[in-house]
Amino acid sequence: MGADHARIIATQVPGAVLQVVCDADAARASAIAAETGAKRSDTDPKAVIAAADVDAVLVASPDATHGALTIASIAAGKPVLCEKPLAPATAECLAVMEAEVKAGRRLVQVGFMRRFDPSYVAMKQAYAKGSIGEALMFHCVHRNVSVPNWFTSDMAITNSLPHEFDIARYMLDTEYRSISIFQPKNVDKARLVTPVFVVIETEAGQLVNIEMNNNATYGYDVRGELVGDMGTLSLKSPMRIESNLSLQRGETYPEDWRPWFADAYRLQNQAWIASLTSGKPVGASTWDGYVATAVAEAGVRARASVRPEPVSLVTKPSLYS
Amino acid sequence: MGADHARIIATQVPGAVLQVVCDADAARASAIAAETGAKRSDTDPKAVIAAADVDAVLVASPDATHGALTIASIAAGKPVLCEKPLAPATAECLAVMEAEVKAGRRLVQVGFMRRFDPSYVAMKQAYAKGSIGEALMFHCVHRNVSVPNWFTSDMAITNSLPHEFDIARYMLDTEYRSISIFQPKNVDKARLVTPVFVVIETEAGQLVNIEMNNNATYGYDVRGELVGDMGTLSLKSPMRIESNLSLQRGETYPEDWRPWFADAYRLQNQAWIASLTSGKPVGASTWDGYVATAVAEAGVRARASVRPEPVSLVTKPSLYS
Amino acid sequence: MGADHARIIATQVPGAVLQVVCDADAARASAIAAETGAKRSDTDPKAVIAAADVDAVLVASPDATHGALTIASIAAGKPVLCEKPLAPATAECLAVMEAEVKAGRRLVQVGFMRRFDPSYVAMKQAYAKGSIGEALMFHCVHRNVSVPNWFTSDMAITNSLPHEFDIARYMLDTEYRSISIFQPKNVDKARLVTPVFVVIETEAGQLVNIEMNNNATYGYDVRGELVGDMGTLSLKSPMRIESNLSLQRGETYPEDWRPWFADAYRLQNQAWIASLTSGKPVGASTWDGYVATAVAEAGVRARASVRPEPVSLVTKPSLYS
Amino acid sequence: MGADHARIIATQVPGAVLQVVCDADAARASAIAAETGAKRSDTDPKAVIAAADVDAVLVASPDATHGALTIASIAAGKPVLCEKPLAPATAECLAVMEAEVKAGRRLVQVGFMRRFDPSYVAMKQAYAKGSIGEALMFHCVHRNVSVPNWFTSDMAITNSLPHEFDIARYMLDTEYRSISIFQPKNVDKARLVTPVFVVIETEAGQLVNIEMNNNATYGYDVRGELVGDMGTLSLKSPMRIESNLSLQRGETYPEDWRPWFADAYRLQNQAWIASLTSGKPVGASTWDGYVATAVAEAGVRARASVRPEPVSLVTKPSLYS
Repeated sequence: MGADHARIIATQVPGAVLQVVCDADAARASAIAAETGAKRSDTDPKAVIAAADVDAVLVASPDATHGALTIASIAAGKPVLCEKPLAPATAECLAVMEAEVKAGRRLVQVGFMRRFDPSYVAMKQAYAKGSIGEALMFHCVHRNVSVPNWFTSDMAITNSLPHEFDIARYMLDTEYRSISIFQPKNVDKARLVTPVFVVIETEAGQLVNIEMNNNATYGYDVRGELVGDMGTLSLKSPMRIESNLSLQRGETYPEDWRPWFADAYRLQNQAWIASLTSGKPVGASTWDGYVATAVAEAGVRARASVRPEPVSLVTKPSLYS
Repeated sequence: MGADHARIIATQVPGAVLQVVCDADAARASAIAAETGAKRSDTDPKAVIAAADVDAVLVASPDATHGALTIASIAAGKPVLCEKPLAPATAECLAVMEAEVKAGRRLVQVGFMRRFDPSYVAMKQAYAKGSIGEALMFHCVHRNVSVPNWFTSDMAITNSLPHEFDIARYMLDTEYRSISIFQPKNVDKARLVTPVFVVIETEAGQLVNIEMNNNATYGYDVRGELVGDMGTLSLKSPMRIESNLSLQRGETYPEDWRPWFADAYRLQNQAWIASLTSGKPVGASTWDGYVATAVAEAGVRARASVRPEPVSLVTKPSLYS
Repeated sequence: MGADHARIIATQVPGAVLQVVCDADAARASAIAAETGAKRSDTDPKAVIAAADVDAVLVASPDATHGALTIASIAAGKPVLCEKPLAPATAECLAVMEAEVKAGRRLVQVGFMRRFDPSYVAMKQAYAKGSIGEALMFHCVHRNVSVPNWFTSDMAITNSLPHEFDIARYMLDTEYRSISIFQPKNVDKARLVTPVFVVIETEAGQLVNIEMNNNATYGYDVRGELVGDMGTLSLKSPMRIESNLSLQRGETYPEDWRPWFADAYRLQNQAWIASLTSGKPVGASTWDGYVATAVAEAGVRARASVRPEPVSLVTKPSLYS
Repeated sequence: MGADHARIIATQVPGAVLQVVCDADAARASAIAAETGAKRSDTDPKAVIAAADVDAVLVASPDATHGALTIASIAAGKPVLCEKPLAPATAECLAVMEAEVKAGRRLVQVGFMRRFDPSYVAMKQAYAKGSIGEALMFHCVHRNVSVPNWFTSDMAITNSLPHEFDIARYMLDTEYRSISIFQPKNVDKARLVTPVFVVIETEAGQLVNIEMNNNATYGYDVRGELVGDMGTLSLKSPMRIESNLSLQRGETYPEDWRPWFADAYRLQNQAWIASLTSGKPVGASTWDGYVATAVAEAGVRARASVRPEPVSLVTKPSLYS
């Protein structure tokens, strides 16, 4: 993702200058810097964050480093777009939150790029117009072609599902009360991760249902249907052509999220850069990043306990109201 | 439904002669007999079942009478197509089963007509071919425009959901282990029944998820997606035309199940009559009717207990193997 | 088609008794009679038409015999459902018309079964409601998987296109003024028939455009879009399931018209039998059969002349008003 | 379009600096300059083209001025992206071509932005892979909600259809041999322009059919189906959500081309700017602009003559090979 982000900033975001590409692998850093026209490359993220020629930071490093690098950016007083998750554990998310609250202003945007995806945006706008009445349920499907052998069911919850945890909260504008996890049997012994099926109850009393299917085999696919008391709204998949061939009418799924969410990443990064000028934060906040991780932790507990687990949150700092 | 069934038998099923139309309301019985060309009408179901000019019985009376009339048909040694439910309570279903087992042969078909619907039939055939591998989940949606004020959430489970309980068992060819019920809040005080969301675990380890939405408002709609470990299969809705009007591309939903399942009822009744000649039973059996009611009873318990309730069944008589 | 019709009459049309199956091949006739439960079989169509135990005749013999057998049925005073075409040449169609006019009553229905297809019926009903305003154009597509080597471009016009010639006249309720034929080059030398593209101007001033593609390869496919001055209406294809497999969302086309138009044939034959009782003719008349053949003849001329050819018709007898 | 282009360059195209906004209306020029952050505004296009601080020119002025401003840009040795049409008449297009040929290098890109639309790009890529075999026909539909009273049928051909003339040539990689125009009657006296239906024969022997419907009423809609001898490819419309409301499943059409082709304009302008650096021209050339105008002129003749009119072109200069 780091290279993808560098390319987006370099080729799609006027107003931003790609100053430094930083990677632990110096060769890779300089190669990407050369490709994207970045001014220089580096291997020391802390030094880059502190550098005088750096105004803002985009963190797309391994998940375990997100929290510390975001805190470092806050400490340097620099806006930061941190790829999801904000941090793998709530404790670390809370440390980021504490730092930002102490700084007294919003500096962090978490990379839940679906908030900028044209389909979700169109759904949220249509819902806001009131045509489907009040939302009762949000059915979500998130399917990947496959994951490696070392991928676990808990990783489905902590790594893949946060996208849905965030977008459903955003769509419904509410927090979650509880989460239940169901899981079908393992039909294929060589394939360790079977789908995870999630039922969430929101504070407002709605249901969010999610099929997270990391080994769906057939393609990358994301769906959503928002069910109101007067009608429903569904996402449409972004395929651009249809074929008639060999007794099949068909549309081709991509193999991963890149083509599906290319617009979302571009629009997210443009919106982030624009927000630095306007001073008006956009996208998911530190609070949203913390909640996504908190829901995932409750989800891991619910998979073990096989019953609804409460989603407990700290008191929301006024900075995020 | 009684009049609809009489019309189907009279106009769509060669080989069957509509002999008697029976209704507690004599005027209605004779009007429908006249319309459909039935030989005569009557108001006494027991007498009709016993009559010498009656070879087979179609029960489409109020639910509470299904069990007794089916037992009477068995007693008379006459094949019977009983509208769902076989009986509203498992005790009565078991009484029917006892009678049929004692009779020593299959006389009863329960009117779960979806088993004859071309969409479900196509799904079952495609699944049997193995293209999607082994089924892991079956996502179902069943939406009605609205129900009267006296309709309750428990009735959603006992009256509407049995269609899904049966078709999902039939599709997956397995019994159920447990059922959980979730329900969003009531957003509209004048509308007592909010959707019911069901999660069933099957004996084979799959998940069946059902949204039963009796006040969906926008139209009659039934959906299903069977998720295998190699791909998925979805029902398509039976609308035959699409319009472009007033900034909308649109398809029109029917207001109730009649147009949606007209093929299913016709094909069911034709198959039933054909089975009388062949002597080879088709469709849902007394056992299937009993199971649907047993699942509904567990569902009512699960709505109250807010936890997974086991689905316990009697030992399956060999007649139904 | 003859065997298909016999099966439909025997299994889908209460009120009709399949009395005789007639085929030049005695063995085939008796085999189909046995399969369908017909009372007897025969090889002499004229004798069958004259027989005292025959009340009505369904002609599904080779095209060249349609006219003569229909005239024989009229002579016997018996209603006849004649498969399309009424006759391959207008001269013979006019002979049928003369016979029927002389008989003084409508005895002939021509088997343009699309008039009974639920999609076209839904389109006609929606159009009649006025929602799309006044029709300006009707775009049609008719595709077959392939045709044998001996099939010619002129046969595309005389054999395949009459279905569209009839249904477009029926939909628009007008006669045709002229027909133009365009044809792309032959890209595949082994495949003699390339698509034929038709532009018809109607008396009412609309355009009917048809792609007739006998070697479309990918599947059997029929489409139609009726364009009004306020909106449009399109046929939807009758596939009942959708699959997600191997990076493809797909629906499966049939290899020929049988599954696509099974409803249309059943409803046509039921309507025909019902019309015998009611005495009120339904479906395409002798006039309609004549016009379809006349348009095809003009089409053959237009393919040769490469310019619009007028569609000239005799004066319409009052019997068909 | 001028303001739209200025916004795209300013907000979506890194590497480009919006230097001058030029408009005959000084107030409008300075307002857009202020909004987009352009360095300055002006009212004299010739002066702007000649200015030392201007490296490249985007012409989005009234059609009648396109040719002269493009020639001025060539004279100044500056690359120019000229909105379609290159010029309203072929004589003027040829003057541009002569100037560019004399300059000895490609400086002109014509704004046929559909060549950058993701749907057409996906179709062209899939076709290039050979899956549908060799193209036989290309069916196109182009519909607008409405046009003003002063819009004529000839303007449909010269103003709206060039988009299809260009994209079909580009898709099929061939020139055109002839064009025929058909037109339904005028059903609505207050609406002067009825649809225009085009049949083009290409040099390679394919057919291109286009419905140009400037008063389609229901929405902005563009369709295309490329028919090969082994299958077909269709554009999908870019709507992102679907609704279920009031007995309708629906998708909302836009009222004009802006949302439909927003991606195409952005990608076109990015590709143009990138081509200035790479020195490798992209998009439609002066030759392509000339051909589109030549086809439109033949189309106007064909509407009057009501017969196929040849499309005659000058010899193609080697600069465009």
